Amino acid sequence: MLADDPVVRVRADLAYDGTEFSGWAAQPGRRTVEGVLSAALGHVLRLPEPVRLTVAGRTDAGVHARGQVVHADLPAAAWAVHAGAAPWRLSRALPPDLRVRSIGTAPDGFDARFSALWRRYAYRVCDDPARADPLRRHDTFWSPRALDLRAMNEAAALLLGEHDFAAFCRKREGATTVRALRRLEWERDADGVAVGSVVADAFCHNMVRALVGALLPVGEGSRAPSWPAEVLARAVRDPAVRVVPPHGLSLEEVRYPEPGQLAARAALTRRVREPEAG
Amino acid sequence: MLADDPVVRVRADLAYDGTEFSGWAAQPGRRTVEGVLSAALGHVLRLPEPVRLTVAGRTDAGVHARGQVVHADLPAAAWAVHAGAAPWRLSRALPPDLRVRSIGTAPDGFDARFSALWRRYAYRVCDDPARADPLRRHDTFWSPRALDLRAMNEAAALLLGEHDFAAFCRKREGATTVRALRRLEWERDADGVAVGSVVADAFCHNMVRALVGALLPVGEGSRAPSWPAEVLARAVRDPAVRVVPPHGLSLEEVRYPEPGQLAARAALTRRVREPEAG
Repeated sequence: MLADDPVVRVRADLAYDGTEFSGWAAQPGRRTVEGVLSAALGHVLRLPEPVRLTVAGRTDAGVHARGQVVHADLPAAAWAVHAGAAPWRLSRALPPDLRVRSIGTAPDGFDARFSALWRRYAYRVCDDPARADPLRRHDTFWSPRALDLRAMNEAAALLLGEHDFAAFCRKREGATTVRALRRLEWERDADGVAVGSVVADAFCHNMVRALVGALLPVGEGSRAPSWPAEVLARAVRDPAVRVVPPHGLSLEEVRYPEPGQLAARAALTRRVREPEAG
Repeated sequence: MLADDPVVRVRADLAYDGTEFSGWAAQPGRRTVEGVLSAALGHVLRLPEPVRLTVAGRTDAGVHARGQVVHADLPAAAWAVHAGAAPWRLSRALPPDLRVRSIGTAPDGFDARFSALWRRYAYRVCDDPARADPLRRHDTFWSPRALDLRAMNEAAALLLGEHDFAAFCRKREGATTVRALRRLEWERDADGVAVGSVVADAFCHNMVRALVGALLPVGEGSRAPSWPAEVLARAVRDPAVRVVPPHGLSLEEVRYPEPGQLAARAALTRRVREPEAG
């Protein structure tokens, strides 16, 4: 489209089974969530090319989502014509492992990435053969040892707050690894599966899977509850922390402020995290 | 084994993802739950041939289970040697879509099929695009129309009790279609998915899927809540009742009486249902 064509910002909420995707970010020759969705949106809106997307959480290969959020700036004319039929056409155009739960015009100042207040991920672990559910094997990690969630929660509580999470992040040049961890808590769901809920303003790469990897040995009794906090304090990656597999992880929710606060939040986030854009 | 070798009756509790199985019952050239499990048990117990199994619920192709129960009469000598290692060896020998949750010597008088007091199945329906979860697409039926669960429950209540369910069964020569329907109830789970719970002493072939197929049009508003009971009363299959797809259905639980009552219950069930054995 021409630079001065009017555009409209559209928000879409997504759910996907990450098993067959090479993660979010488009890569030549790979099946990615971004690639499949941007092609489908271009097709459904009859645009000459795929749509550029901005995402709240860049999930890795094999990670799932129930509450992913994206925005796209679309030609206003095409959106006006096709918006009504877009949900139904998208459900036909998309494969069964990727669903658009809702799509519509975004409020002023909305930015899927920079307006977000926090992201919530969940990591599922089954540690009891008597509870094994083959229907959930695609989104549940299997632990051959029973986990003591009380010990894991004791360890987790010591990690809360704003810290440099360099010990749990894959380092990127010029990017801050300071994050505010708001919640890190384990409980058993109705089926007895241990579910870790992790909430932070944002996450650096591998952070949730490294945090879970630091807590599992505590749950198994092979590390003291103080150990993950000691790793955190050293601020360098510890080879003893095993990054757990992606298939237990889902992006469950992205929270945004009230519409009036969206632009201010985005400006604040950019000021703090701009160096790591990309 | 020789006819007078001592045998021990063993109970195993199973969970499986029915997607890739051609149902429970062994069939030449097909991958079935019975075929895979009996071969694995024979292998794990070092027996010269597959183990003969008796199952609580003969699930159809594509139907899942979280609470399936089987028994097998095993050579006591082999069981005595291998029982301790059986759970671990089975978990290695079985594919990821079939799990033995527990295995052990059955109490006196136990019969997986005939001792059962009742079976409970669940049928999952998602009727809201905003709740669509690709991770559950293998065990959740998609309804493009929103369902009124109150109307479905009104209709379901009229089907409870002991009736001839011939209208909802695939007829088999000489087999009774009289069943006691103890519970048939819809509610939404925490994710907003409509879950129908169905409990009966036993089910004839296709019965749960035909009952659900009679209730969905009520939930969609295209049939009155009185319609399924009218179909029931005619006691012949009604082509207007669509048998819903198998993938939404799971066998969740089989309930047995207290150990002292197992043999009496089995004798009673055989007297009532023996003609349909097989």
